[in-house]
Amino acid sequence: MPSIYYPDFIALNQKDRADNIFNKTESGEVRTDNKWADVERIRKDIREFKAKNDLDKVIVLWTANTERYADVIANVNDTSDNLLEAIKSNHEEIAPSTVFAVASILEKVPYINGSPQNTFVPGVIELAEKYDSFIGGDDFKSGQTKIKSVLAQFLVDAGIKPLSIASYNHLGNNDGYNLSAPKQFRSKEISKQSVVDDMIESNEILYNKESGDKVDHCIVIKYVPAVGDSKVAMDEYYSELMLGGHNKISIHNVCEDSLLATPLIIDLVIMSEFLSRVQYKKVDEEQYHDFYSVLTLLSYWLKAPLSRPGFKPINGLNKQRQALENLLRLLVGLPVNNELRFEERLLV
Amino acid sequence: MPSIYYPDFIALNQKDRADNIFNKTESGEVRTDNKWADVERIRKDIREFKAKNDLDKVIVLWTANTERYADVIANVNDTSDNLLEAIKSNHEEIAPSTVFAVASILEKVPYINGSPQNTFVPGVIELAEKYDSFIGGDDFKSGQTKIKSVLAQFLVDAGIKPLSIASYNHLGNNDGYNLSAPKQFRSKEISKQSVVDDMIESNEILYNKESGDKVDHCIVIKYVPAVGDSKVAMDEYYSELMLGGHNKISIHNVCEDSLLATPLIIDLVIMSEFLSRVQYKKVDEEQYHDFYSVLTLLSYWLKAPLSRPGFKPINGLNKQRQALENLLRLLVGLPVNNELRFEERLLV
Amino acid sequence: MPSIYYPDFIALNQKDRADNIFNKTESGEVRTDNKWADVERIRKDIREFKAKNDLDKVIVLWTANTERYADVIANVNDTSDNLLEAIKSNHEEIAPSTVFAVASILEKVPYINGSPQNTFVPGVIELAEKYDSFIGGDDFKSGQTKIKSVLAQFLVDAGIKPLSIASYNHLGNNDGYNLSAPKQFRSKEISKQSVVDDMIESNEILYNKESGDKVDHCIVIKYVPAVGDSKVAMDEYYSELMLGGHNKISIHNVCEDSLLATPLIIDLVIMSEFLSRVQYKKVDEEQYHDFYSVLTLLSYWLKAPLSRPGFKPINGLNKQRQALENLLRLLVGLPVNNELRFEERLLV
Amino acid sequence: MPSIYYPDFIALNQKDRADNIFNKTESGEVRTDNKWADVERIRKDIREFKAKNDLDKVIVLWTANTERYADVIANVNDTSDNLLEAIKSNHEEIAPSTVFAVASILEKVPYINGSPQNTFVPGVIELAEKYDSFIGGDDFKSGQTKIKSVLAQFLVDAGIKPLSIASYNHLGNNDGYNLSAPKQFRSKEISKQSVVDDMIESNEILYNKESGDKVDHCIVIKYVPAVGDSKVAMDEYYSELMLGGHNKISIHNVCEDSLLATPLIIDLVIMSEFLSRVQYKKVDEEQYHDFYSVLTLLSYWLKAPLSRPGFKPINGLNKQRQALENLLRLLVGLPVNNELRFEERLLV
Repeated sequence: MPSIYYPDFIALNQKDRADNIFNKTESGEVRTDNKWADVERIRKDIREFKAKNDLDKVIVLWTANTERYADVIANVNDTSDNLLEAIKSNHEEIAPSTVFAVASILEKVPYINGSPQNTFVPGVIELAEKYDSFIGGDDFKSGQTKIKSVLAQFLVDAGIKPLSIASYNHLGNNDGYNLSAPKQFRSKEISKQSVVDDMIESNEILYNKESGDKVDHCIVIKYVPAVGDSKVAMDEYYSELMLGGHNKISIHNVCEDSLLATPLIIDLVIMSEFLSRVQYKKVDEEQYHDFYSVLTLLSYWLKAPLSRPGFKPINGLNKQRQALENLLRLLVGLPVNNELRFEERLLV
Repeated sequence: MPSIYYPDFIALNQKDRADNIFNKTESGEVRTDNKWADVERIRKDIREFKAKNDLDKVIVLWTANTERYADVIANVNDTSDNLLEAIKSNHEEIAPSTVFAVASILEKVPYINGSPQNTFVPGVIELAEKYDSFIGGDDFKSGQTKIKSVLAQFLVDAGIKPLSIASYNHLGNNDGYNLSAPKQFRSKEISKQSVVDDMIESNEILYNKESGDKVDHCIVIKYVPAVGDSKVAMDEYYSELMLGGHNKISIHNVCEDSLLATPLIIDLVIMSEFLSRVQYKKVDEEQYHDFYSVLTLLSYWLKAPLSRPGFKPINGLNKQRQALENLLRLLVGLPVNNELRFEERLLV
Repeated sequence: MPSIYYPDFIALNQKDRADNIFNKTESGEVRTDNKWADVERIRKDIREFKAKNDLDKVIVLWTANTERYADVIANVNDTSDNLLEAIKSNHEEIAPSTVFAVASILEKVPYINGSPQNTFVPGVIELAEKYDSFIGGDDFKSGQTKIKSVLAQFLVDAGIKPLSIASYNHLGNNDGYNLSAPKQFRSKEISKQSVVDDMIESNEILYNKESGDKVDHCIVIKYVPAVGDSKVAMDEYYSELMLGGHNKISIHNVCEDSLLATPLIIDLVIMSEFLSRVQYKKVDEEQYHDFYSVLTLLSYWLKAPLSRPGFKPINGLNKQRQALENLLRLLVGLPVNNELRFEERLLV
Repeated sequence: MPSIYYPDFIALNQKDRADNIFNKTESGEVRTDNKWADVERIRKDIREFKAKNDLDKVIVLWTANTERYADVIANVNDTSDNLLEAIKSNHEEIAPSTVFAVASILEKVPYINGSPQNTFVPGVIELAEKYDSFIGGDDFKSGQTKIKSVLAQFLVDAGIKPLSIASYNHLGNNDGYNLSAPKQFRSKEISKQSVVDDMIESNEILYNKESGDKVDHCIVIKYVPAVGDSKVAMDEYYSELMLGGHNKISIHNVCEDSLLATPLIIDLVIMSEFLSRVQYKKVDEEQYHDFYSVLTLLSYWLKAPLSRPGFKPINGLNKQRQALENLLRLLVGLPVNNELRFEERLLV
């Protein structure tokens, strides 16, 4: 199925692969001056796909190339109205992934962003809220960052204070090739940074003004064609113990990138579909409601969780998991898990 | 302060270090034929230490050498009565750590075992129950096993199935020297094995009769004097992904063994003291109760958690931590954490 | 082609695989009381194989299971005469690999031992000398030990003093299964130890009585079925720098064991054949001679080089390689390499 | 002793550390418009230092910050005459290290460059030749590159074909801080690249047009203040075996950077002094000569060996070492080592 290609948003080296697109002139030249038509075309594609395959529901998930970040600009993409206007006037900061998001929202189809760029500019979130349509993101949490979210929290919880975390990656597939361009790498870097913030904020005894509240955190991604889809991630945690001692943990992680990402895609789609069907009403209400538009319960699978405006994202994997587990327990009538286990801890 | 030394229970290579003991004849020979007197002497030491230092409370924590396992034998150490009798008749399967445990229980002083051996034979647990005295164990969870409990669970939760875990350690301090003897190593090995059982049982989709319900788990500890207290742990997790793919995670962990263990000791003592003061009564009861004798809430710091007879130990670090956190929240009147966070997930 | 099986020499767990043997009774029971007949049968097999395939030359290479070490006993395997007698009287210390070696020597066929056991007891070496037949061994140098021979020498040459080397291996193929038996592992351990001796002896400034002349060297091999033929070797070098500083190098090496060993087999066979054809005479001699029986030039591919009685083995990989290179240069009339390169270092 | 500071050549972040310089105006402003005076001042410093300390000989060794590369420009630094002229006219491509080199050459004092930049532009080499003065460089070979030169050659010699080498470093000392600036890093990167070229050229069976003659070689250096002088180098070699198999070697190397570099400095100075005293004459000559100006025998300690114009540098550590060893053997009247060892390999 043909799609859209706005060259400015992905690495130049991807040009030859963009060989199945509809945003082009009759003579085959790429055009980016008709973005609203692109929205309409994608909406039509969704509808036709649903009808042709006789589907009850469609979920749209972006697993395409990492785009550069879009600038968030007042009067352009800061509100839903401005955003729609900006698309219509072909503003250069409207990314393809945002065009897909807008099309999905207008069709009331859940839309999930598996790449790191800021598809969900404020205008998109507001649009989703207006249409009661579901969105979730950003960036599949498949490997290094996932382990980092676990290990960093583990260390801090144990009173071991990471001073530096150096994260090196290399891979040889097309994802790596696209990320070898600086702007696209930058999107990834931002997405990978935030996980450490959580850790720092969670323990004021370790991290504070006096004893230092920063971690030297470096992130490197290199394109090394020889290794193909076999992605290598090396992380080194250098931490402070009591009495001036140190702890050094080095992790070397080799995995098939695609085989780690694919189950996440399946889980995200299944869970989005499920969450889109959950409804609730409060004790004294008559009417049932859907969940709020931003599906933060999907965070378990996402590196840089999109949060509801006014709330902080939850990066900790265990918290994310517990949320899912306890919601599901509640829905089937089980008590939530809290590990108090009084039955074994009390005398009688 | 002199202590006891039963040569059969620790490595032969420790002989020269046992130079401050009271279980010896006047001519200086070690004697193990007066074990009840040893119990009495330790009880007296506890009382005198408390009096001399004008203390409110004493906690006894075993951080001495790893002993060999004691055989659990019917009519010897299977009940509290048999155990006391066996001590009086100097049975060879009564370990020094058990003598300390019994003395502490009889003094109603909390006793924590930071080493891997089975100090808490069934007779000791029953004795603690009888005397409403607190016990907790076994084996400080300071390093490799702690991370393993986190990572193994992380992998299985993510649908990644560990097929083998190879754990290599070397250290050069006296702990390593003692563990270079086969029987003492065996105690450690048993203590380090169990963590993986939890992981296997937690996910029947990954681990079952059909697709395999075992993990090749090997544990090696080597005494390498050159590295001193700087303990090295190397773990390799080899796991199965979908479609026949594999993931390999190697961890190299260097730390000052003593600096990791010391905070655990402090935490265990503080928490034991605290838990020994918590009391509760049920809604319709008049009288307050102490917690049950086996302090399973200490499991967070212990490699092979001692559980209440009839209950399974909880090895998962996150569950152990959540238990502590939620108990403390409850005690100060906060709601327990369950991560449902409806305030951000519901529409209104 | 059926072969021989003496159960005492390999791991019990190999029993089921020994299903194509000729040393058995008519009712199928393994017999080890007819060892001279085994020698004769193998000699016949060699001759018939050569005739049937119309070959110019045969080379025999042992790539079968690692055997336990044979005891070297006076009057049993210490001289060639005693050895032949011991075979005829079915002495229990005559290993299958020695039976093959003797058969090959008597047929004047070069025999190479690719496994670690001491096939070449003194009696075998003397026999080879008597018959002017070629032998070479022991143990393919394919992986961890090969790198160790390079790295250890590199460190010492650089004035960096290794204090400890910890070497951990695991593999899941049948080689690993056989080595999980203690006696077979012991053969491997001896073979892997020697490489460090060279290093120590090469630098008396670093290693001496005063500053210490030992390295804590531990070797572990574990059978981990899950990893199959994908062998994992982890080495850690902990070394002393000047002024009390330290250097720590950790190596993690994953390879297909069989794919590393196969080229060695080919190289060993080709080189043995070649060396068996090289002849020389000294300036004033009339007659050409073969090389001496023990082909020490094969050491480049062998972990525990068999040396000529009275000479020390050369373990250093670079020296081994240089020997081969310079011999070949000499044979084709080129000057040997000595890296003096006066043409670029002198003024004119 | 004050020195010179040309801000354009080192990282901006070094500005505050340049607090002991003589190339400044009376009001304290740095000036770079008087370079010939700088040369003269350094010459004077050398002479005075020698006189004041009553020295026989002075050796100058550059262990200061890594500079950016200087452009090699026709009529500027391509010949010795042009170079001297360019200094006098304060050309912006004249680096501080070149100023020191020129001063040393004019004083006939050996000059060694321990940093990676191209101090030795063609004009400097020609000047050294003219004055029969000694120079040597570039860049101390202390750690990662040294091991790489050994391991890469080892692999290729063993018929194992590296397809990619990923090299990650981080350090937290001032060297790392300076290298965090792109131009200075670039100098280091060039210096670290060349080691692999040797390896590729040495084996045409592995590396050729048909089967591929490139290695994906990536080099990363990150400034991570937390780790201080404790430099971490992680290298991963991914190689091809026969039949489509692969080998992956990961090395993790932690060392005190300064403690590795210091002995190199001592060795370089001692060896330079020694080599400056070696003289030779050919059989039919009357007069003795010094060595050629570029001391390629120092390459053993240098990452990017400076070679004589018209000759290729020798990067292989073993070849470099053998050169030193055999020269020294020759000078004391021993035969050179060639490892032929006929005494043990020949029959009689």
